[in-house]
Amino acid sequence: MKITKEGITAPKGYKAAGEHIGIKRIKKDLGIIYSEKPAICSAVFTKNIVKAAPLVLAQKVLKENRYISAIAVNSGNANACTGEQGYRDAVETSKILAESLNLKENEVLVSSTGVIGKLLDTKILTEGIKLVSKKLSSSQDSARDCAEAIMTTDTFVKQITVEIEISGTPVKISGIAKGSGMIHPNMATMLGFLTTDVLITQEMLDKAFKSRIDESFNMITVDGETSTNDTCLILANGMAGNKLIEKEDENYEEFERAVDYIVKFLAKQIVKDGEGATKFLEVKVKGAITREKAKILCKAVLNSQLVKTAFFGKDANWGRILSAMGASGVEFNPEKVKISFRNKIGEIDLFEEGKPNNFDEEFALKILEEREIQISIELQEGEEEIIGWGCDLSYEYVKINAEYRT
Amino acid sequence: MKITKEGITAPKGYKAAGEHIGIKRIKKDLGIIYSEKPAICSAVFTKNIVKAAPLVLAQKVLKENRYISAIAVNSGNANACTGEQGYRDAVETSKILAESLNLKENEVLVSSTGVIGKLLDTKILTEGIKLVSKKLSSSQDSARDCAEAIMTTDTFVKQITVEIEISGTPVKISGIAKGSGMIHPNMATMLGFLTTDVLITQEMLDKAFKSRIDESFNMITVDGETSTNDTCLILANGMAGNKLIEKEDENYEEFERAVDYIVKFLAKQIVKDGEGATKFLEVKVKGAITREKAKILCKAVLNSQLVKTAFFGKDANWGRILSAMGASGVEFNPEKVKISFRNKIGEIDLFEEGKPNNFDEEFALKILEEREIQISIELQEGEEEIIGWGCDLSYEYVKINAEYRT
Repeated sequence: MKITKEGITAPKGYKAAGEHIGIKRIKKDLGIIYSEKPAICSAVFTKNIVKAAPLVLAQKVLKENRYISAIAVNSGNANACTGEQGYRDAVETSKILAESLNLKENEVLVSSTGVIGKLLDTKILTEGIKLVSKKLSSSQDSARDCAEAIMTTDTFVKQITVEIEISGTPVKISGIAKGSGMIHPNMATMLGFLTTDVLITQEMLDKAFKSRIDESFNMITVDGETSTNDTCLILANGMAGNKLIEKEDENYEEFERAVDYIVKFLAKQIVKDGEGATKFLEVKVKGAITREKAKILCKAVLNSQLVKTAFFGKDANWGRILSAMGASGVEFNPEKVKISFRNKIGEIDLFEEGKPNNFDEEFALKILEEREIQISIELQEGEEEIIGWGCDLSYEYVKINAEYRT
Repeated sequence: MKITKEGITAPKGYKAAGEHIGIKRIKKDLGIIYSEKPAICSAVFTKNIVKAAPLVLAQKVLKENRYISAIAVNSGNANACTGEQGYRDAVETSKILAESLNLKENEVLVSSTGVIGKLLDTKILTEGIKLVSKKLSSSQDSARDCAEAIMTTDTFVKQITVEIEISGTPVKISGIAKGSGMIHPNMATMLGFLTTDVLITQEMLDKAFKSRIDESFNMITVDGETSTNDTCLILANGMAGNKLIEKEDENYEEFERAVDYIVKFLAKQIVKDGEGATKFLEVKVKGAITREKAKILCKAVLNSQLVKTAFFGKDANWGRILSAMGASGVEFNPEKVKISFRNKIGEIDLFEEGKPNNFDEEFALKILEEREIQISIELQEGEEEIIGWGCDLSYEYVKINAEYRT
């Protein structure tokens, strides 16, 4: 498995583009991803029952046809809570995208992120789609432009490529994503687009993709908020010409590992770029009776405002961690819980056997001064474990969200 | 129903005191409430499965005996997550309290709030209890001292008295409370102590008290956090000599209304004094099919970080409200939802029929510049409704909780 910083045009047959078309004031706001051959698409969408128009449309399209050739993504306007007009706008945009690229309407998807509740300026968007369609290229610059165009309050581009071999044939999988507020582990929780040239059946693609989403994008949180527009999808156009992956053999496993690497990388990048984040927290819950229990506890800790502010304040506050666990609704024995922090500075055990260890506060502070901190929570009740990622809650988060209208 | 600002010594037969004994640096940190006659005690405790030692002890005591004569409450140390030693300390403190006031051990309760995970300094506390026991008085100054002594990051004293007549006999009910972080509507969520001289059966007291808690303390939130020490209780010593309340007649209803007024007043005071709060938000969810659904939606809105930061930023962001509702897990039809804001400045309808109204942003800003804002959410699906209270999320909340070790 070879990892590079290439973008989504690295796999064979993909083109991309990203431009500023005028939805946002200055920054790039429209990206298009294109596959020369129709690609099998596997997708997950927000579980928020308030779904943005493009998601409603995408779900309808994918029910009819799972082979997709192009996706247009705009930032700056989410086209969410925009009623029937919003849906008509999504349909119209799709039509223009299909026309511009000589495709059928059910071969294209549109996706949006940004302000909720404002109608799209369809004139700007349709003109933009026509323009950007002409700029599609397989260059790495174009891939990066596209990754930039989907960003909102993100501060850096998130893209990665993994190269593997399937029965001796090289295969590439790439991904881009955007965060960075409204991030909650209840679903795909952001925008993420993966491209690959692997040759795989629809069933196996669904399996690899959806199982890996559960362990990555569904295990991160920035603020416990679930957006109306969360979308994560993968396109597989088969152009690598590898031996078809059609069952759960070693080739499947190799592909799944690559997808796993990409989605975890992107998920962690999203958290690292969480709005106002100064800390990157990795919470590992071990020794749970069920995986589900471990998940609930992990998310309860990562979503606790008091835990998050404690990390912002560099406070070794295991008490807030235990309290957040206790309020999660999951039964566990606090007397058996063991809590420790660790990173490159060292490791410190804070709590065990129902009471705090008499730990060295100065050493704890040294650990907490680092940007990355691993929190280990042992329940000593079973064998299941889970890892989740989150960040602290800073002044900057409040500032960004008091001033930015999502 | 007459409302006064008197404290918990207003009803007949109650004394109180509050002093600085040295748990905290400067502020008062030990309060005692005393009833001349053993009073029936009705109590609710945190649903957090990590329960502080004094709560575990109080639950044990109240199982044996529901007639209580004294309660000692310390702030500055929660005696939570302190293992077996913490429980022994709670028992020892109880003993000293009982001895100091010539009571049996099962007639007294202890309660704690403050830092988690530190052993109590039992020498300071037991000396303190002996000292403060001697200062008990029925004066209003003593009542206020006691209300002050239970505060942590609260910025003002929360106390109130309601006077009613039961079959022509005057009866008083008083209450004090402390907030102001770790407030979440999943239970009693804070410390609240009510005293009354009403003559009532245990069954009727339980009924009136617990039903009113559900509509007040369980409907407020500051930060979605549920403490290990939440306790709310009422003492009824019968010294008003009114006709015994023993069934749900008009006298019961009058008493329940008075309790309702007190707990809602205290609950709202807690929110108004929420850590760093600059806005007081009242969310009314109307037209729900079930009360339970209305509650979940109400709390989802009040707990949303993005909704809270929007109010801090004076942003009429109905989109975040709708998104928080959509992520709550409750099914509803977004097309039927109507969202409006209102306060003394006026009223503004923001969203209906699946899309935003073209509302006057300047007028919305005027409404949002006020400290108190009512948010009305109509589902148009049924007849049930609920009201909940919360606050915004400010820089100050982050500051307080990054610096203060709970």
